[in-house]
Amino acid sequence: MCEAAAYTIKDGQEELLLEAVELIEPETDDSFRVVSIFGEQKVVKGRIKVVNLVSRRIIFEDQNS
Amino acid sequence: MCEAAAYTIKDGQEELLLEAVELIEPETDDSFRVVSIFGEQKVVKGRIKVVNLVSRRIIFEDQNS
Repeated sequence: MCEAAAYTIKDGQEELLLEAVELIEPETDDSFRVVSIFGEQKVVKGRIKVVNLVSRRIIFEDQNS
Repeated sequence: MCEAAAYTIKDGQEELLLEAVELIEPETDDSFRVVSIFGEQKVVKGRIKVVNLVSRRIIFEDQNS
């Protein structure tokens, strides 16, 4: 399986948002919907800072940071 | 390996941009840099429409479509 972990950046630190992420889609102009292989969903405000498919990490950051 | 294929949408059709994508990062406010495991790089204008890590497909779309 190739799912990844999604993180947000809070106060300069990475914070785990959701593990085993299968799907990322825009929810609104400034937010994304993140869905795990278990069907768990989270909406994260901001933009994608990096998707790394080798380290299997997706990092979101606030639009203004 | 968990790399994915990146596509753009042209005239409503998906068009292969780059295979074996390892990394996606914002390049500017409205473009992304996409890097393959072979070191090949492409810059794509627009936004991410979907990242699907099970089907291993990343689709970019024009901002205005």
